[in-house]
Amino acid sequence: MNSAVAALRDKLLELQHLGSVSALLGWDQQVNVPDKGHEARAQLMAHISGLYHRSFISSEFEMVLTKAKEIMDRGGLNEDEVCIVRETLCDFVKSKKLPNEFVDELSLTCARAHDFWVRARKNSDFSLFAPYLEKIVELKKQEARLVSPNDPPYDVLLDDYEPGLTSGEAEKVFVELKRFLVPFVAKIVNSSTEVNDSFLKGPWAIRKQRKFTRMVLNRIGFDQEAGHMGISPHPFCESLHPSDIRITVRYKKDDFIEQCLMSAIHESGHGMYEQGLPVEYFGTPRGEAVSLGIHEFNSRLWENYIGRSRLFWEYFFPELKLYFSEVLTGVSLESFYRAINRVKPSLIRVDADEVTYNLHVIFRFEIEKDLIEGRLSVSDLPRAWNRKMADYFGIEVDKDANGVLQDVHWSEGMFGYFPTYALGNLYAAQFYNSALGDLPEKLRPEEFFKFLLGWLRTNVHSKGKLYSAAELVKRVTGEELSVHYFQEYLEYKYSEIYDI
Amino acid sequence: MNSAVAALRDKLLELQHLGSVSALLGWDQQVNVPDKGHEARAQLMAHISGLYHRSFISSEFEMVLTKAKEIMDRGGLNEDEVCIVRETLCDFVKSKKLPNEFVDELSLTCARAHDFWVRARKNSDFSLFAPYLEKIVELKKQEARLVSPNDPPYDVLLDDYEPGLTSGEAEKVFVELKRFLVPFVAKIVNSSTEVNDSFLKGPWAIRKQRKFTRMVLNRIGFDQEAGHMGISPHPFCESLHPSDIRITVRYKKDDFIEQCLMSAIHESGHGMYEQGLPVEYFGTPRGEAVSLGIHEFNSRLWENYIGRSRLFWEYFFPELKLYFSEVLTGVSLESFYRAINRVKPSLIRVDADEVTYNLHVIFRFEIEKDLIEGRLSVSDLPRAWNRKMADYFGIEVDKDANGVLQDVHWSEGMFGYFPTYALGNLYAAQFYNSALGDLPEKLRPEEFFKFLLGWLRTNVHSKGKLYSAAELVKRVTGEELSVHYFQEYLEYKYSEIYDI
Repeated sequence: MNSAVAALRDKLLELQHLGSVSALLGWDQQVNVPDKGHEARAQLMAHISGLYHRSFISSEFEMVLTKAKEIMDRGGLNEDEVCIVRETLCDFVKSKKLPNEFVDELSLTCARAHDFWVRARKNSDFSLFAPYLEKIVELKKQEARLVSPNDPPYDVLLDDYEPGLTSGEAEKVFVELKRFLVPFVAKIVNSSTEVNDSFLKGPWAIRKQRKFTRMVLNRIGFDQEAGHMGISPHPFCESLHPSDIRITVRYKKDDFIEQCLMSAIHESGHGMYEQGLPVEYFGTPRGEAVSLGIHEFNSRLWENYIGRSRLFWEYFFPELKLYFSEVLTGVSLESFYRAINRVKPSLIRVDADEVTYNLHVIFRFEIEKDLIEGRLSVSDLPRAWNRKMADYFGIEVDKDANGVLQDVHWSEGMFGYFPTYALGNLYAAQFYNSALGDLPEKLRPEEFFKFLLGWLRTNVHSKGKLYSAAELVKRVTGEELSVHYFQEYLEYKYSEIYDI
Repeated sequence: MNSAVAALRDKLLELQHLGSVSALLGWDQQVNVPDKGHEARAQLMAHISGLYHRSFISSEFEMVLTKAKEIMDRGGLNEDEVCIVRETLCDFVKSKKLPNEFVDELSLTCARAHDFWVRARKNSDFSLFAPYLEKIVELKKQEARLVSPNDPPYDVLLDDYEPGLTSGEAEKVFVELKRFLVPFVAKIVNSSTEVNDSFLKGPWAIRKQRKFTRMVLNRIGFDQEAGHMGISPHPFCESLHPSDIRITVRYKKDDFIEQCLMSAIHESGHGMYEQGLPVEYFGTPRGEAVSLGIHEFNSRLWENYIGRSRLFWEYFFPELKLYFSEVLTGVSLESFYRAINRVKPSLIRVDADEVTYNLHVIFRFEIEKDLIEGRLSVSDLPRAWNRKMADYFGIEVDKDANGVLQDVHWSEGMFGYFPTYALGNLYAAQFYNSALGDLPEKLRPEEFFKFLLGWLRTNVHSKGKLYSAAELVKRVTGEELSVHYFQEYLEYKYSEIYDI
């Protein structure tokens, strides 16, 4: 490795240590911190963020980065090295524009807001969370202005999660998606086919849930010797290092498949991406995921395209029946397959089926854009939310806990994150289509899981941030991002289930 | 607060954030890190230790400290402020003598050694751990030379855990203790009284163990809204903040009382000390525990003087019987009390009864002193260990996992730590005697727990590091540390149980 880049890598690795600490603090905050410990945790997280920011924008770091950039500009670096310098530079330029005090305030506000969001959701009382959200929205607007005063503020924030994508481009895709989805959902809802999923209510014994979930994750390829599974109300994934990936699950007696198993497969899809990143580049952009959209394609691919497929359940259903005979006696594979793919407009995004899911995302995108661009105030937010729910799904929100308070993202300052969920679904369809084109022959299920993970390792994980999301999709699938594959997938699958 | 001291406190709080991160990294290392994640964790922990050390001995920190010291020297500070400056200075002078590279190497070596100790113990193969231990012993000798080249090296290390105590003083106490213990143990072993504890083997249902343990900790005063209980093979306690105390427990079907409940009470004794430290001084010595000996007195007091007392079980035994009727039907309170206080020389320190326990400690003190002072080599260590076990207890070590590999301490570089365990037992007897002298009247058990915790809060916890251990024992009990109270306690309790 070029010595200037090696020096940069060493500096980045130091920063990465603080990044890993932040990941652990965040994971632990949701898994272990006791009630009274949240204020101390908020201060601790804010301090570490501040330390990270100060080290990143320090003149010492800038000197090392500048030296590497000079060599890059002279054409003296290979592709991997260019990736490291280019992406670091891009982050550096942004971060440099944020004063330390601003970063401190934003981190502390968000770290504190989390606990108030938890309480507000628990009590379904938006007013507990509103003052924090107001402050966060103001700070995020300010962040956008500081980073790029001449660009639309929402686009500036979006760039943190899906680098290179403008909100105009996202909107174009979403409009097309909506044009397909709204009538498609209506067709399903109005179809005469009834899918019975009442047996999914269990009761499912918790201990067996844990055992079955672990077994499934092992078989699809999530390495549990390089991963740990905790419990939290909202499942998520954090990476400390490719050898230490943290996911969380939740156990409910009356819903194993959706609340536990599918979300565990989802999170382990994120986890397998992180486990597959090139460890020799750990801490540098060459060892980092492309974007959140690409991340989400991994999780949705495993959750939906695999975890809700016939193939998957042809393989696992007999075992599931052995584990849970008290729940599944008399239930056929076909009824089970239909039940877990039942389409039903509902209030909660994370419980949504794969047809209605994107509509949840699209309306969040519209709402958060309005918030950041000043067309919507925090006090009007619950009303706006409930109106959208009525418009898109024709259902009424019974309480804010099931409406505007359901998602954690805004409490953590993550505006511009939601669109990546819908993008992930589209990417997943398109990449999966390419993967299937490379399928050597008909494989047994275990071989197929192995093939798919291998294909992802080769074509996506091992690349780190070498290419942008747009470049990667072009290189691997031969086309730009398209709604086509996703639409085709849904039409094929659900016209069969609902006979439409 | 004096403004120079306030400036110092702010700097200390920044350092404390790194300290809290280290505490979490250490806790999580033993509770959650997956097999393959240990090397990354070792590097992460070493990096944070290095960062701490560099910030602590930085010229920026020194300047702030020097300013506060000048004011202290002029007599311009109150007692609390003096405590902060005096104790910080004492640590600073020591740390300043340790070069950054030395601290990095020591931290990395210890963080790595932990995992090899775990593997060595699991396989009972000392050779897996020996090379790491050799390196650690060399580094600790070097540390002692760097800090204070003219003092006996073991004394220098001991000072980190029990500030102000020399190994000569410890030895004097231990000789006296041994003189009492060896014949006392012999008397018990040779007594004709047989204590039956076979019913303690259960089986005890794990879920009920957890529930009962939580209930007991709540009643004695461990605030679980400011604490979290994890699971690890070796129970321990870490403090991130008085509002976020982490303890761990373990669950075994064939031993609830000793392996789970007593050790949970022990760790929550540590935890209650940390929860009682003055939060307004968090991060400064005024908000820190006096010494490990005083810490251990808190844990041993709750575990032994309370948790193994008749009073405690008169209160809890009826409930225990309700929880575990399948184990305890037909067992009387008296048989139970005797069973949990059965004296039996055994191989494992953490499972030892309170009579033989100190002998385990004393021989570790002798061995580690020999190691550090060069009279014993690491390769001879297992033999030396086994010889001492034969000398002190007349029992043979079956395998190194039950011998020299049983304790975690040396793998973490903690030489000089063991003596604090025995001191803790002595302090506990002496302080408890004083507390009982302040007892207002006969109280109901819950009132008594409350009284005792209140007494500890007032006389110990709230004081932070205001006084050294030697001063504190003098102030509170009116006497210097003495073997007398401990001896009296054992004689009274065990002559009754064993009729000697």
